[in-house]
Amino acid sequence: MANPSPGYSIQLRAEVSAHVTATGELVAAVTEAGAVVTAVDVSESRHDRIMVDITCNTASASHATEIAEALSRREGVVVHEVDDRTFRMHVGGKLSVNPKSPLRNRDDLSRAYTPGVARVCQAIAADPRDARRYTVKGNTIAVVTDGSAVLGLGNIGAAASIPVMEGKAALFKQFADVDAWPVALDTQDTEEIIRTVKALAPVYGGINLEDIAAPRCFEIERRLREELDIPVFHDDQHGTAIVTLAALMNALKITGPSLADARIVLSGVGAAGSAIIQLLQAEGARHIVAAGRSGIIHRGQAHTDEHRRWIAQNTNPEQRTGSLADALVGADVFIGVSAPDLIGEAELASMAENAIVFAMANPDPEVDPLLAARYAAVVATGRSDFPNQINNVLAFPGFFRGLLDAHASDIVPEMLVAAARAIASAVRDDELNASYIIPSVFDPTVARGVADAVALAAERARLDATEQDVLDIEGAVVA
Amino acid sequence: MANPSPGYSIQLRAEVSAHVTATGELVAAVTEAGAVVTAVDVSESRHDRIMVDITCNTASASHATEIAEALSRREGVVVHEVDDRTFRMHVGGKLSVNPKSPLRNRDDLSRAYTPGVARVCQAIAADPRDARRYTVKGNTIAVVTDGSAVLGLGNIGAAASIPVMEGKAALFKQFADVDAWPVALDTQDTEEIIRTVKALAPVYGGINLEDIAAPRCFEIERRLREELDIPVFHDDQHGTAIVTLAALMNALKITGPSLADARIVLSGVGAAGSAIIQLLQAEGARHIVAAGRSGIIHRGQAHTDEHRRWIAQNTNPEQRTGSLADALVGADVFIGVSAPDLIGEAELASMAENAIVFAMANPDPEVDPLLAARYAAVVATGRSDFPNQINNVLAFPGFFRGLLDAHASDIVPEMLVAAARAIASAVRDDELNASYIIPSVFDPTVARGVADAVALAAERARLDATEQDVLDIEGAVVA
Repeated sequence: MANPSPGYSIQLRAEVSAHVTATGELVAAVTEAGAVVTAVDVSESRHDRIMVDITCNTASASHATEIAEALSRREGVVVHEVDDRTFRMHVGGKLSVNPKSPLRNRDDLSRAYTPGVARVCQAIAADPRDARRYTVKGNTIAVVTDGSAVLGLGNIGAAASIPVMEGKAALFKQFADVDAWPVALDTQDTEEIIRTVKALAPVYGGINLEDIAAPRCFEIERRLREELDIPVFHDDQHGTAIVTLAALMNALKITGPSLADARIVLSGVGAAGSAIIQLLQAEGARHIVAAGRSGIIHRGQAHTDEHRRWIAQNTNPEQRTGSLADALVGADVFIGVSAPDLIGEAELASMAENAIVFAMANPDPEVDPLLAARYAAVVATGRSDFPNQINNVLAFPGFFRGLLDAHASDIVPEMLVAAARAIASAVRDDELNASYIIPSVFDPTVARGVADAVALAAERARLDATEQDVLDIEGAVVA
Repeated sequence: MANPSPGYSIQLRAEVSAHVTATGELVAAVTEAGAVVTAVDVSESRHDRIMVDITCNTASASHATEIAEALSRREGVVVHEVDDRTFRMHVGGKLSVNPKSPLRNRDDLSRAYTPGVARVCQAIAADPRDARRYTVKGNTIAVVTDGSAVLGLGNIGAAASIPVMEGKAALFKQFADVDAWPVALDTQDTEEIIRTVKALAPVYGGINLEDIAAPRCFEIERRLREELDIPVFHDDQHGTAIVTLAALMNALKITGPSLADARIVLSGVGAAGSAIIQLLQAEGARHIVAAGRSGIIHRGQAHTDEHRRWIAQNTNPEQRTGSLADALVGADVFIGVSAPDLIGEAELASMAENAIVFAMANPDPEVDPLLAARYAAVVATGRSDFPNQINNVLAFPGFFRGLLDAHASDIVPEMLVAAARAIASAVRDDELNASYIIPSVFDPTVARGVADAVALAAERARLDATEQDVLDIEGAVVA
């Protein structure tokens, strides 16, 4: 059974006879049933009976039910209410839209609305760049999904995906003061999604694509980048790539090899996999072998999809063939963005000395991290209940903060690398060890560091573009 | 020149020598230049010089410049800064998106985001109606425009329309705690707008269409009503109709005739005009004559557009012909939603005794309200600087509050009538007079009253629909 988690936290209200050990017995019973008690309150007391509120983490929805039943079966205990704290937190949704200044009187109204607002409209009509200055566009991004690949839940559709998009929006605000709005689209047609996002773009300073199934997500991202004048970021790809590179930079400082020399095996050739390959190579990695469900990707295969074709062309310089297990023999680094339980002891043992294992499949990693730790020098996962959590939340809030601050209209690879370096450098040299290769999600310095690095990269890209224009003009003059 | 207005409020920072009458002289100079001073602060003081901040209402952008220039021309005065308070209020936009509860630690994150959020997603996937309970959908509407008919500014496009949509969203929140989000679409194609709004609908509990040009707006509203399962409201039509009916109900209490007997002339056969006709008739009006640019609408004409055809079929029972002036002879009520300065003294004089004049063209009414007051018993406009402002803000916040509270999926005419009655009844009998036929925009009771009335009407409509289902089933069984 999974470990009890705050994601399955419940509050039980139980009535018992008021004897001195009553509360202790309840806690013991809940603990015995496998839950972790986090708070106990007596919410009501009479001469003979007390009402006890027990807050506890459980392992699953059915486990929560079992615990309530276990309590009910005890003599003299009446369970009145089982309150699921996760659902309670969601009642009414997780976001609100608030006026920044109140409209208390006619003066306020005259400025925020008619007639004063007309002048602001006219200013933007005269110079559309003013929309970033005088509207929410300057600080707001859209979190766009079609609900087709939500968390590990798959194609659950637009409505069911909203809580994830709201959560993401809350993280954007909390970590980087970026206003983000959920855009959950009731269509899974590539062209329709592209058209819709283009139509609603005027209000936004950036687009964060989220939980859209491959290969549709690639086409949507590519086209929107070409056709919009605001940056478009597919977090499942580039957010994951940024934090993976950050973690790998620091892990290699511990184990020894340079990124250029490290023999890297990547499991998973979906959206995240190909983005990771591109980013690692941008930072100098040369020995990457990628494996999909049918084994190592190499040029000898006929790949129907564009991404596998690209991976075949751009990885595996020695043209190795075989299974994931074959690839791992002698490898320095395993990066998994694939599926649970793909490798075991034999594969771990076959890797090089001081190996690095990033088993990031969610919620269940490619290998049990405790087992991996017996063989590898550094182990990281996507989970919060093990050390070294590789979590996109380290990247996306600061990344968009930087894009908005710089009024960036596009994303260039240098920004991704800069963000990864900023995250890696948030772990100081005297803090770095095998259990701390990546900063905590709650490290308050990370988002600002990422934002500044991204804004600087945007500035450089703009200068380069200007220089290129100058060169082009000079070239034209000479010709 | 127009009157100074808070919509053109500026703050001047002027440096002058520190003599005892310095501030008074500055105020006098600003007043002399035609501005209305609303605040004076000495923001900095030295032995010999003081810095004075003067806040004042001006009449226009050029008037604001003139005032600064007039000050600068005075001996010893240096104007350092002219700050436009309306623009300042808009810097950064007028809305923010905020998490309802902070994500302070891993427990919060586990509930608001992964892994806990997955269970909420699954609950909605199992029963999509839960989206109203567990996401922003339950309290959020979209304020949708294509930027084609914004205020009196015309087709200024999506980006330039955003400040109006944000202002509207702020009003929704302020007056009725409805979360509203600006959706300014970069397309003016009817089908594309319909497709886009349908695609983004999952996140919203209602759609408020705004500032979309006729006749496109009619088709968009009709189709979205048919094709979406959330209510769709075109404020320029129905919001205007509601407040017009409310004001007319109260005005007729003063002047005498019943709505059924009143001879009503309506100028303007655009979006608002036809909605007003429909609503007045729903409440019992029988004698309506409508006039467009080419005069009275009657059945003897060949009308190409659907709306004029409908108006011809459903108004003007005596089949009168002629000009707007002809229509007004003997009329009890004039309602203008058309253009500035269409009628004058002769037309006013030709109306019946105790006439009612609603001159609502914005910003310049169909007739000077001061002139109208010399002939009519009751005069109302859309402006805030005359008594009896007929302003949609009395209707739309409470209207959507009621729709959301009732989980309404559609809008029925009974809701519009109920909203109008609620607004009218916010003016108590002992308050009612010719200068107070409609409550203040800032009357805090109005939105709640409208919301309750609309929710009740929704409940009745649901009961009626259920009864109809029962009748249909019984009918089917008998057949």
